[in-house]
Amino acid sequence: MRAEAWADLAIDRWTSRIVPTRDVDLSSRLQTLIDAKTKPIGALGRLEGLALQLGLIQGSTAPCLRQPQVVVFAADHGLAAQRVSAYPQEVTAQMVENMLAGGAAISVFTRQAGLPLTLVDAGIVADLPPRPGLLKRGIAAGTRDASAQPAMTRGQCEQAVRTGAEVVAGLPGNAVLLGEMGIANSASAALLLCRLGGVPLADCVGHGTGLDEQGWRRKGQVLARVLDRHAALDDPLDVLAALGGFEIAMMAGACLQAAAERRVVVVDGFIAGAAVLAAACLAPAVTDYCVFSHRSAERGHIRLLDRLRVQPLLDLGLRLGEGTGAVLAWPLLQAAVAMLTQMASFESAGVSARQG
Amino acid sequence: MRAEAWADLAIDRWTSRIVPTRDVDLSSRLQTLIDAKTKPIGALGRLEGLALQLGLIQGSTAPCLRQPQVVVFAADHGLAAQRVSAYPQEVTAQMVENMLAGGAAISVFTRQAGLPLTLVDAGIVADLPPRPGLLKRGIAAGTRDASAQPAMTRGQCEQAVRTGAEVVAGLPGNAVLLGEMGIANSASAALLLCRLGGVPLADCVGHGTGLDEQGWRRKGQVLARVLDRHAALDDPLDVLAALGGFEIAMMAGACLQAAAERRVVVVDGFIAGAAVLAAACLAPAVTDYCVFSHRSAERGHIRLLDRLRVQPLLDLGLRLGEGTGAVLAWPLLQAAVAMLTQMASFESAGVSARQG
Repeated sequence: MRAEAWADLAIDRWTSRIVPTRDVDLSSRLQTLIDAKTKPIGALGRLEGLALQLGLIQGSTAPCLRQPQVVVFAADHGLAAQRVSAYPQEVTAQMVENMLAGGAAISVFTRQAGLPLTLVDAGIVADLPPRPGLLKRGIAAGTRDASAQPAMTRGQCEQAVRTGAEVVAGLPGNAVLLGEMGIANSASAALLLCRLGGVPLADCVGHGTGLDEQGWRRKGQVLARVLDRHAALDDPLDVLAALGGFEIAMMAGACLQAAAERRVVVVDGFIAGAAVLAAACLAPAVTDYCVFSHRSAERGHIRLLDRLRVQPLLDLGLRLGEGTGAVLAWPLLQAAVAMLTQMASFESAGVSARQG
Repeated sequence: MRAEAWADLAIDRWTSRIVPTRDVDLSSRLQTLIDAKTKPIGALGRLEGLALQLGLIQGSTAPCLRQPQVVVFAADHGLAAQRVSAYPQEVTAQMVENMLAGGAAISVFTRQAGLPLTLVDAGIVADLPPRPGLLKRGIAAGTRDASAQPAMTRGQCEQAVRTGAEVVAGLPGNAVLLGEMGIANSASAALLLCRLGGVPLADCVGHGTGLDEQGWRRKGQVLARVLDRHAALDDPLDVLAALGGFEIAMMAGACLQAAAERRVVVVDGFIAGAAVLAAACLAPAVTDYCVFSHRSAERGHIRLLDRLRVQPLLDLGLRLGEGTGAVLAWPLLQAAVAMLTQMASFESAGVSARQG
């Protein structure tokens, strides 16, 4: 499986390899373990459910997190020509350079957390020189303008999904933290949430990296036109091709591959979440493997999380992307595992139980 | 200042040494720095305000966090005799043993985070043998039953406040994370919130470590009687003496000392928060130095945070105490400082600014 990740895209092969983590017996054993720890029942709140999920993902009452990998996929969007972002398109490449130089938020946070960072050029317009830490996997020099034609051909989209899967297959460890960079990609995520998630467009469109009110209204109008143009599409991969981006398709593939290998997937914000939504259209069980790190300030994110029926861990008003939320939430996963595997039980510690 | 922390308790000496961190010029320089980082304005949400606060506390545009110390104060409460907790009183000592043995949640989380843990016996009924990691600072073998008499004498209360200050003064570093252990201390915190914070009792009383509905109602009735008995008291230290606990008074002193030294104080949950409320009655500026780590599931906590006009970082449904929430939030402080001191600016990284 590992090396030849998704050599073909036959969807039934994917869905059959990504199995739901539900295991009534294991779940019950995990809950019994958690409840026996020296704390009142439920007193560690969300960490307890997180520990349970991590145990189920690894099929073990003693999960461990090995060599977690932060992977940031970056690509340009033809739709940026419609001025749906507050920043010019060249910022995608400039920010990737900044990440490589260690000055971006994700560089700083991964260094702080001791997490390795891999950057993937999924299709940036500028031709970035290859170097350590940068995987050159560009499908094309940016997608096409989705207001005029599908952003990707079906073939490009499949190639991007496969490439994302291959990137994960090539990395060590049992956890991946997914982030992205791409000017205009909150527009792409909004389109996917609307079309794949059935959420009204007005609830999907946010201010992205900082559009003013006028820019936000224009973005909504542009996206409405884009949706009209591609309204006939139905197949999730066709929709992803028309409305998505290279980095989003790659994150969808990364997520599917990770789930097939039973790796933990830590999902960053709105755009990474849209990639999970696309992946879940292909293999619904994929979300069992996903930990949603935070709820961002981007308008559509709360609807996206509701649509996936998941609860994020953090709510810090972040709206940066890059995987920053995923990295900030990572210590909570470590704590959840440590709780499960290292905390004493009432019995082992000789602590009295509840009275009465 | 450091060694002879609060040798006397003259309140005007405290308040004069704990100065508000507000500094319009520094605040403006910090905000300019944060806004120049390679991210959209405000895109790191709560981390940005946190970075600003940490800069103001240290009076610097380049704050650093040195040798953070987790301090857990533990004591018994005479009020436990009224069965206001789901657990028997001996659990306080048993849990401190568990913390020392490394099996408690706080032991596991501090180990995971690489933070040193100091336990303070502030007044536990059992006589715990002294050993490394445990400071024996007990004022008495538990407080008296506040439903019959003041929990502490005024002298005991002042001694506890001074002791908490001395504990902090004796520790290295520029940040303290405050936690506690004490069966029945959520009752004590509820009393303080009601009396010092002016919050209706019904909004202050929660299920603590897991009371059932009947136990919760009984707790409310007991606490109403306690409040009636001590209704005539007005001076905050008299109120703290009557309704508080040794660990709560010590946390109040720890907090005051830390603020006077301009250390960062990371506040855990409801009970640590009640100690801050008491400290703020003596020196209102103390909250400038406090980072509120999380909002717990304990009923009164949201009212306490509102009363202090502060926003917590995490909201994970924790209700364990021990300092667990403070330790879980700690990486966010590290990230905020790293953002401020290590992230590139648009100018330094050569990233294009917003368009038009």
